[in-house]
Amino acid sequence: MTDRPAAGLPVMAIDVGGTKMAVAVVEPGGRIAAYDRIATPNDGGVDAEGLWRTLESLLDKVAADAGSPDFAGVGVGCGGPMTWPAAEVSPLNIPAWRDFPLRSRLRSRYAGLPVRVHNDAICVAVGEHWRGVGRGRGNVLGMVVSTGVGGGLVLGGHLIDGATGNAGHIGHVVVDPEGPPCVCGGRGCLEAIARGPGLVAWAQEQGWRPGRQDVTGVDLADDARRGHPVAESAMVRAGRALGIAIASATHLCDLEVVAIGGGLSQAGAMLFDPLEEALRTHARMGFARQVQVVPAALGQTSGLIGAAALIFASDRYWNAD
Amino acid sequence: MTDRPAAGLPVMAIDVGGTKMAVAVVEPGGRIAAYDRIATPNDGGVDAEGLWRTLESLLDKVAADAGSPDFAGVGVGCGGPMTWPAAEVSPLNIPAWRDFPLRSRLRSRYAGLPVRVHNDAICVAVGEHWRGVGRGRGNVLGMVVSTGVGGGLVLGGHLIDGATGNAGHIGHVVVDPEGPPCVCGGRGCLEAIARGPGLVAWAQEQGWRPGRQDVTGVDLADDARRGHPVAESAMVRAGRALGIAIASATHLCDLEVVAIGGGLSQAGAMLFDPLEEALRTHARMGFARQVQVVPAALGQTSGLIGAAALIFASDRYWNAD
Repeated sequence: MTDRPAAGLPVMAIDVGGTKMAVAVVEPGGRIAAYDRIATPNDGGVDAEGLWRTLESLLDKVAADAGSPDFAGVGVGCGGPMTWPAAEVSPLNIPAWRDFPLRSRLRSRYAGLPVRVHNDAICVAVGEHWRGVGRGRGNVLGMVVSTGVGGGLVLGGHLIDGATGNAGHIGHVVVDPEGPPCVCGGRGCLEAIARGPGLVAWAQEQGWRPGRQDVTGVDLADDARRGHPVAESAMVRAGRALGIAIASATHLCDLEVVAIGGGLSQAGAMLFDPLEEALRTHARMGFARQVQVVPAALGQTSGLIGAAALIFASDRYWNAD
Repeated sequence: MTDRPAAGLPVMAIDVGGTKMAVAVVEPGGRIAAYDRIATPNDGGVDAEGLWRTLESLLDKVAADAGSPDFAGVGVGCGGPMTWPAAEVSPLNIPAWRDFPLRSRLRSRYAGLPVRVHNDAICVAVGEHWRGVGRGRGNVLGMVVSTGVGGGLVLGGHLIDGATGNAGHIGHVVVDPEGPPCVCGGRGCLEAIARGPGLVAWAQEQGWRPGRQDVTGVDLADDARRGHPVAESAMVRAGRALGIAIASATHLCDLEVVAIGGGLSQAGAMLFDPLEEALRTHARMGFARQVQVVPAALGQTSGLIGAAALIFASDRYWNAD
């Protein structure tokens, strides 16, 4: 393994989530030279090895598309939880992988190359810091607001891992101690209120009738945009919870920029206006008033760009072996 | 100015607060070779220059007590807010100093020596990390629970400053968005609930009659220990608020240890039991369950020890010019 990427060579970047698996060949500047993705085979008919073979096929295809280059290393964002940095992964939404030795498998496949795996939301935050809206700023919280609420923390220009690689869990900052139960086992976490399924459930309790099954937070945001009052209230509810959590994070970490990505962040002013209002209510000290909350810039590829940065900019984003 | 302290020389350490000013000569291992303190002349009869001369006299006396050694540098903890790292200080509880150029004055007085000033609660956290209960741990939150609630954050073994030197403001993590107004202008901050005067006001509203004026949170804790039910409820209220804020901080920063100092932390199990209960209710994920909350170890001198560490261990605790 080398500490520094070989000059000029690209990185093989991987993003493993419950919905899709994406792979890209990323050049040193951050440009994506080749890319493909597939729906994660996640219907119970695929076992751990089947899922691994699916990923290997995707890696083969994308490498071939890029002209089968040599690589400087392999960077991976994967849904949590995982041991870290060993990356035995047990993604919440991928039941086929429990304690799956993802890093070890990739090290065998890419012998001699550095292989680095981190939480997928952390990779999104790193991507936004390296090449997105956080570029050049020292103190940035990157967030993903979607089926869950995740994040990653860059302070003093360096990725913060915490004791076990789990720093950045903004979704479990408590915004209402008497609030709804959270999937984590706690109560009143940001995620319990602002995650898509939580919002949908709340809106349905309040009388939102979308007229079909399997609706998501994005559908809710669409209805809010069309003026449905319950859907609008749901966006206000999510925005307020986000604003309160961001106020807490800003006070604790003295942040400059909070970048919000994920499906729900597409809701625009429906979400960001109540967010700003709650943030400005709770963040009143001079230093905290300076924080800027902005939509993430890199879209669907931010996690891949961040995964590549674990290799390309390891001085800032990789603090482990 | 030198980047590294001259080997073997002590540091002149200063702790400036609204109640007292303390000065110590601290040896490289953290031992205090000489120490004195005075009540901060804070009755309105002293102006900025008078206060400075008082501090200078104290510096002269303590240096003489230590045998007038040469110093490796000067480390200072001072009540906030301040510009940082320039340290023009405007301590909330010292009206005589507004934009007082403390660092610049000390630099003139100790020409050629490094002079470093940080928030007093940050110095407490640094002291506990360097020589107290956080020693050898990578990810530590140090807290001071007293007239206010302050703190400092050490992550990955390094002090976190944030964008403006204000990281560590655990007192303004929101624990109840509909809670009482806070001195910061916000609402429902930890400090609004758990600071001594806040607890006293709440207990008095609930019928606590201590029988004299000018009572503090420490008096309230004494009454709680004697079994006064309202005083007990006040400790439970403070403990819960602390537990919720610590759960949020642990999720965001993946902490190993939280060290709690300040007058109110003397309340022992009265405070720490409800704290633990709230923390364990809200911090349920595996990584968060591992956090340990412990009383600070260094007592009244922790801020001085931490101020000295700004010089002695600048690779970990000083990230500015």
